[in-house]
This record gives sequence, C-alpha cells and structure tokens, in this order.
Amino acid sequence: MTTERTRVDAKKLTDFTTKTLQKVGVPEEDARITANILVATDLRGIDSHGVGHLAAFYVRGIKEGRVNPNPKIEVFSQATATAIMDGDRGLGFVVGYRAMMEAIHRAEKTGAGFIAVRNSTHFGAAAGYAMMALERDMIGMAMTNTVAGVVAPGSTKPAVGTNPLAVAVPAGKKAPFVLDMATSVVAAGKLEMARREGTSIPEGWAIDKKGKPITDPAKRVRGEGGLLPLGGTPTLGSYKGFGLGVLVDILCGVLSGSSASILWESTPETRGNAGNHFLGALRIDSFLPVENFKKSMDEMIEAFEALPTLPGVKKIYVAGEVEQEIEEERRANGIPLHPNVVASLQELAKELDIEYDL
Amino acid sequence: MTTERTRVDAKKLTDFTTKTLQKVGVPEEDARITANILVATDLRGIDSHGVGHLAAFYVRGIKEGRVNPNPKIEVFSQATATAIMDGDRGLGFVVGYRAMMEAIHRAEKTGAGFIAVRNSTHFGAAAGYAMMALERDMIGMAMTNTVAGVVAPGSTKPAVGTNPLAVAVPAGKKAPFVLDMATSVVAAGKLEMARREGTSIPEGWAIDKKGKPITDPAKRVRGEGGLLPLGGTPTLGSYKGFGLGVLVDILCGVLSGSSASILWESTPETRGNAGNHFLGALRIDSFLPVENFKKSMDEMIEAFEALPTLPGVKKIYVAGEVEQEIEEERRANGIPLHPNVVASLQELAKELDIEYDL
Repeated sequence: MTTERTRVDAKKLTDFTTKTLQKVGVPEEDARITANILVATDLRGIDSHGVGHLAAFYVRGIKEGRVNPNPKIEVFSQATATAIMDGDRGLGFVVGYRAMMEAIHRAEKTGAGFIAVRNSTHFGAAAGYAMMALERDMIGMAMTNTVAGVVAPGSTKPAVGTNPLAVAVPAGKKAPFVLDMATSVVAAGKLEMARREGTSIPEGWAIDKKGKPITDPAKRVRGEGGLLPLGGTPTLGSYKGFGLGVLVDILCGVLSGSSASILWESTPETRGNAGNHFLGALRIDSFLPVENFKKSMDEMIEAFEALPTLPGVKKIYVAGEVEQEIEEERRANGIPLHPNVVASLQELAKELDIEYDL
Repeated sequence: MTTERTRVDAKKLTDFTTKTLQKVGVPEEDARITANILVATDLRGIDSHGVGHLAAFYVRGIKEGRVNPNPKIEVFSQATATAIMDGDRGLGFVVGYRAMMEAIHRAEKTGAGFIAVRNSTHFGAAAGYAMMALERDMIGMAMTNTVAGVVAPGSTKPAVGTNPLAVAVPAGKKAPFVLDMATSVVAAGKLEMARREGTSIPEGWAIDKKGKPITDPAKRVRGEGGLLPLGGTPTLGSYKGFGLGVLVDILCGVLSGSSASILWESTPETRGNAGNHFLGALRIDSFLPVENFKKSMDEMIEAFEALPTLPGVKKIYVAGEVEQEIEEERRANGIPLHPNVVASLQELAKELDIEYDL
C-alpha cells in the first residue's frame, strides 16, 4: 500500500515550524532551534521523529501546559568537564540543544564535556544533538530515557523505556558515522506505523502479558507486555539490550537527579512528554591530530564497504550512510510528507491563524 | 556432562599467578596487578577470561615475544580530561590498569577522564577496569577492540571484533550495576566451550560463509562466516549490534591512533594478543551528591526486582547481580577450576620451576 506523499521544501518547512511555535509562545530563537532539529530529522528520513509530531506532541504539549514555552534553564556545575542541567519542562529540543552546547564548550576547554539533564521533555531523535559535535571535530553522544515500554528478560511488565542512544563521529571524505538506536529490538514508532497501515509485525519485536509473541500490533495493550530489549531472547542476548536500556536510565535519569522511568508516575504528563537526557562531547584533537583521525575513519569505512555481500545485498552500510543518502535526495527534491502529516499541519495553520505556504 | 572441578583458594591462586608472571620477567607490581584482575574475574564466574588463559595467552605470549613483560608505557595528553596511552605491547592487564588509573585521576580533577590506548594486548574481561571506579564513587567504562570475528549485516566476512564494552555504576545497599557485554550475540568463548564439550549451539549465534546458521561449532572455519552482531538479523536489529561494535573500534582503535581491527594484518601476533582500549571515568559528585545518587540507584534496582516474573523465572537480575552472588559463594568456598585449567597450571609450575600449592 503506497500513499501519495507531498514534497515540501526544507527551508519553507523550517520557517513554517518556527512561526507555529512562536504562535504558542516560544521565543523566536528557541522556535528556530526546534524547527531546525525537527526538519533536519525529516531530511535524514527519520519521519517518525520529525514535523509529524509538531501538532500532537509539541504544540499540544505547550497548549495543555505539559511543556513550558519559556523555561528558565539552569546549569549546576561542580567541575570543569561536567554539569547537571534543569530544563524547567522546556521543549526538549531547546533543552537538548543548550545542554549539547554546554557539553561542547566544556570539551573545548578540557577535552571532554558531559551534561546530565532533568526536567526536560520529548527531544525528538537523539542523533540531532550528537551531530552538533561533527562540525566542531568532536565525537558527540546523546541519550534520553522515555516512558517504560520495554520488558525486562523474564518479565512481561514494561521496565525501561526504548531509551535510545546516539553517537556521531566525523570522517574525512566519507559520511560521518552516526549511530542512533533504541535499546529495544525496534522503536515504538515501528509498531505504531504497522498498526496504522494494518500490517503484521515479525515475531521478536513485542510480547503480550503472557510472554507470547505479538504479531498483530493492534493487539498490543499499554502496560501489558511490551517491546523486547535488543537481543530479543535471553539465548540471543536480550540481557544486553536490557542492560543498555538501564544504562541510559542511569545516565539520564539517576545521574541528573531525576529517576529511572520505572519510578515515574504514569500520568498524562509523563506519558506524553517526559524525558531526561545525557549529552556528551569528546574533542578529537585532545587525543590526536584531526587529520589523522579522519583519514583512519575513512580507511575503516572503505574497508567495510569493500566487504563481500550476500546475494541480494547491494552494499554494506555503515551507520549514518543511508541517512546521508536520503538527505541528499530530499535536499534536492523536497521532504515527502504523508497526507496525515500534511493534514495535521494545515489544521495547525488554521488553528493558529498562520499561512499554510508549503 | 559434568566435569569434576577443583576448588582453589582465591588468595593462593593470586600468589601463584603472581609468581608465574614474575618468572617470565614481569616486575612484581605488574605481576600482582595482573593476578588480581585475573582472579577477580574468576571469582565473578567469568571463567572464560580468568586464569584459564594464563598459560596459553599471557605466559606463552611473553615467551614468544608477542607481549612485552617490561613495557615503557607512555601518556600523551593535550587536555586535562583526555589522553592517549601507548602500551608498548605490555600485558593488557598492566596497560589497562594504568590507563584506568589515569582516567580516574583526570576525573578527580575535572569530573571526567577518558583514555584511548594503543599498542596494548589482550586485557581479559573489560568489567575489571570499569569496576575500579566503584570504590571511588565514579562511573567506570572500559572497552577493547579485538581481532575481527563478527560479520557485518549483509556480509559473511568478519568485519569487527566481538568488541566488548563494560560499564560499572555504584549503588548503595544493592550490588553495583556492572554491564559487560560483547557487541556480538555471544562472545567467542561460548562457541569455544560448546566445541570443547561437543554440544550444539542455537541458531542465531554464528553463520557460515554462505550465510547459513551454524549449529555445530566444530564446523566453524576461521575467516569464513563468523559470529553475528547483537540483534542477529537485520529485522531484529543486527545493524545496532554492528554499530556498537564499530563504535568500540572507533574509540579504541581509531581515536588511539591505532586502527579498526578490519585493517589489522592477520598475523599470529594480532590473532593472539592485539588490542586497543578505551577507558573512562565520571565522578558522580561532580553531578550530584553521591548519597542521593546511590539511593536513587537502589530504588531503581528494587523496582526491577519487584517486577512480576514469567513462570519458571525466579528473579529479575540487573547486570552484575548474578556475578556478585557467584563471587560471594566462591570467596567462601574457593574458585572451581576445570581439570584442563588445573592441568595447564600444573604444567606451568613444572615448566617454570615453581611450587604448585593450590
């Protein structure tokens, strides 16, 4: 089932998103930061975390008081390389951006910078923050904890969030290495998409409250059963995916002075928007000359690309390469929006009395 | 098939191991550092990375000139929080220990410390280094790249090592969180063990050169096919395990000024012993008071332990709890050594003319 997409220009989409956020009280600079990250996510093909959420997650979050459009973001620091940030329930994009800039500034001084962030909200795709390090010749990392939806091995009750982690590393001629992965087998968005399109899902993504595989995503009941941690089964290493999920909860939730998501009260507030983050930067030239590093990255990536492939496999992709190819195509031809997303943006324009000019 | 184990005392085993290493030219302090880490690994039940390797990996490595018993370890630093270490082909235990101490000292000053290490050799289990942070109320992390043995999704040629990563986080009353995981579905040792015991392995651990699952570990041919990255198949997220493996290669191999293992020449030297590491420490009280942190860790772990379990599952374990239980038992009753390990140690004693008193 293919659905016709409407191609829209990235620049226009950014301006529209900025105006929308300003209309609900977000200061211009913050609105632009948010729009830039959202559209950059769409450009890279991560449609599940882009402007498709603008109305439901962010504008509604502000209008219903769950997200603070004008947060007083505070930094508490006891050391040169590290700090805690309190996001005052601001837009996760604004809080995440400022925390990553703080990590980068600290890495400029000491070689490494790490910021644990509490009281933030949904910040979209983690890769966007990690990638802020790239043009500064740093390695960036970004994580967030999310509402519990992933079971522990041996249990069927959600214990950790999909808790994604992202790392971005610059290369020379090759695309940067950008890994952005939920610590579950799949992100929640993949089930959502299958449910919307009425397709089944493979065994190994999710289980029901009896521990049996769910293949019909419509049969998933919130709070009963859940997504499986990366690895899927104990025999195939699911305690590793679970361990990584807990690690993200520790760095984002515990170290920031908030908590692991298993301890969050399940209120509409936490369900929709809550999140703590962990952002980090390592300055490459505090280890070795940037030129040497990038040359070595290129050599590694070229060696991966030269690997023999199985029949039917065109190319071995290193993390971030697919997204870079998509971005090049979308910059040239526009971002293809699903009719539902177009409708939600048109409705938003009407509701907020701004021109829909995409 | 159960094989009778011989219980030996941890203290005696440490002294024996120290003497053995001294006999092949390792200075006393370095020999003791190595023995402590090896025996601590056995105490925690990680038999695949303990004194079972003493003869074949380390003593033979020194005798055959692949491992330098008296390395000149150098640190090159351009910033307060970060440095590169050159291990001069020393015992990985000694190099890893010194690198972790360097990371810890830097974290004492700036809050964070990260050391990329090149020209090291096999350093045993990564957890031992990460756990050095625990008594200092820090979060520790340790990784190493290893000879390529894991395939990339879509290929059947080894592209990355099993590239383990470990993270250790102190708790209060509860056992510390200690995650130590190969980024492949299983570590190479699990196939080795199955081969030795003549048992089959589950589908999903390894593939042959045509991409078909290997279930008879004896049929595995080095360099043809290989272990699968965590996730197993692309549908179940194997690009995530592969991505994590590449990340470990970047931090250990590329950032240290060595290289990713796909570029290593496959010589007896690299096959047996090569390794680059990445060690890190984050000082908890540079984020928030240690007491608050540990209380929050305990609350999280207790919430995991209170999860309902599937029939047949006694308890939900958080990473590190099983190993802590094993350590308590082995400290009380001795470390159970496999007859092959006992034989290898007895032979070593004879060869080096030291008393076998275990």
